[in-house]
Amino acid sequence: MTQRLIGAIEAGGTKFVLAVARESGEVIAETRLATRTPAECFPEVIAFFRQVIADHGPIAGFGVASFGPIDIDPASPRYGTFTTTPKPGWAGARFQDILGEFQAPVIVDTDVNGAALGEWLQGAGQGCHTLAYTTVGTGIGTGVVRAGRPLMGFSHYETGHVQPPHDRSVDPFPGGCPFHGDCLEGLAAGPAITARWGQSLSELGSPPEKVDLIAGYIAHLAASLVLLHMPDRLIFGGGVMKTPGLIEAVRRATEARLGGYIQAPQLDPGLEHYIVTPGLGDLAGITGAIELGRKAAN
Amino acid sequence: MTQRLIGAIEAGGTKFVLAVARESGEVIAETRLATRTPAECFPEVIAFFRQVIADHGPIAGFGVASFGPIDIDPASPRYGTFTTTPKPGWAGARFQDILGEFQAPVIVDTDVNGAALGEWLQGAGQGCHTLAYTTVGTGIGTGVVRAGRPLMGFSHYETGHVQPPHDRSVDPFPGGCPFHGDCLEGLAAGPAITARWGQSLSELGSPPEKVDLIAGYIAHLAASLVLLHMPDRLIFGGGVMKTPGLIEAVRRATEARLGGYIQAPQLDPGLEHYIVTPGLGDLAGITGAIELGRKAAN
Repeated sequence: MTQRLIGAIEAGGTKFVLAVARESGEVIAETRLATRTPAECFPEVIAFFRQVIADHGPIAGFGVASFGPIDIDPASPRYGTFTTTPKPGWAGARFQDILGEFQAPVIVDTDVNGAALGEWLQGAGQGCHTLAYTTVGTGIGTGVVRAGRPLMGFSHYETGHVQPPHDRSVDPFPGGCPFHGDCLEGLAAGPAITARWGQSLSELGSPPEKVDLIAGYIAHLAASLVLLHMPDRLIFGGGVMKTPGLIEAVRRATEARLGGYIQAPQLDPGLEHYIVTPGLGDLAGITGAIELGRKAAN
Repeated sequence: MTQRLIGAIEAGGTKFVLAVARESGEVIAETRLATRTPAECFPEVIAFFRQVIADHGPIAGFGVASFGPIDIDPASPRYGTFTTTPKPGWAGARFQDILGEFQAPVIVDTDVNGAALGEWLQGAGQGCHTLAYTTVGTGIGTGVVRAGRPLMGFSHYETGHVQPPHDRSVDPFPGGCPFHGDCLEGLAAGPAITARWGQSLSELGSPPEKVDLIAGYIAHLAASLVLLHMPDRLIFGGGVMKTPGLIEAVRRATEARLGGYIQAPQLDPGLEHYIVTPGLGDLAGITGAIELGRKAAN
């Protein structure tokens, strides 16, 4: 029997990845395009899927893992719609509108929920019942998957805006978040690092005292995720996490912050198996989007 | 048709509430006893349920909402067992052992998860899809219910140990948590308040500047719950929350901390409908325990 086809979109702030896979996960067509306005991107998205359908037959379900903020509540009338994003043209854009002509069910979730799902299925989160995937890059966000389903409340989580302790006598940088100043994203995302020191941590040569400062802020989120979600593992990806020595420093700072309070086999001494980098690298998002499409089809 | 009977235990640090209810929720027998060691309490628990069964017939399921730390993972071999509690005699005690003679299924969850479930069913959390119930008393803890089920990861949450920003030039108190010093519980639980000022906030006359200081710490948890769980409502109960003016101060501090970033109808201006006190008062826990027993029976 021929397997049905699944359509997938990983919509990132800088690029879109489009794929069509068989239900087994085998990718039969893939392309990338630069993120511009919806008026520029969406026709290319439609053209790609039209061509694959002409070549291979109909698509049974679509999965979208997208940047946000975006409404990911299937019960909402605005499901799949970008909400308050400052990205020009995106507020009000809706994935279902462009995918509607293919007459297949669509599931829309966030990029980090998609990556969490991908890592849980095929990456560093395999075997976990509860998994948290955090990206530290241009922004900071976390997806939490439990029993194979991304969690949410009335909206997707916004973990980048937690407020870590910030000692201005050590780090006088006021923080770069337009809403909160020195929230985590304002202190430790890529733009905050370059605003503070003029270069990325890697470009600066990854000096230990600077790496430790940023690691301390990220560890505040790591500890908060432990205390508020008790995940079986924490994955940290994104551009900033590629800084040499950073993940090790995050492990040390998180272990210090937890202070031995949580006793569990998951939290191994040194946290080497608890706080890890992604297993799929940059493929986590599209892998998760394909899984969302598979769920949509079933 | 006669309704089946449900057994319920709310196990608190100072008292136990025992109840037997019909499936409709109607309580037909109830008693209270002081929490001492398991060797002292457990025979009284058994005697109560034996008597009710002799009078009214068998119990179809038991629900337990207990202080912790306690293993609440139904898949764990130690399900229902107290883990690392410093309370004399309780580490290793297990509810299933004492309820075993009644040959009915048992569900064990935390006191705050039980209270969250009770408030969601019949109290201030009615109509919420995701609800967070936090107690601020001798300790600080939160239960999060989503779609009628308490959430957990590899263990129950431990929200009392998040670390709020702590400016020692304003509040020189070093914090009273034996693990973390100035975590939330170390700064804002009842014992931390009396250690700092010699009396409770209410005994001190609820001076606004002291109320605001404590509210700021609690608001750190409130904002973290929003960012990491996006609940439809936050309920704050427990002895400390009975301080006049405290809930209002928590609303103000939480709104300030969120900085207008989260736009949602749930977060009404002023947060009067978002951050609320319990609707069931001290009945939330036993109401939730009865619901856990109903789930166990079905």
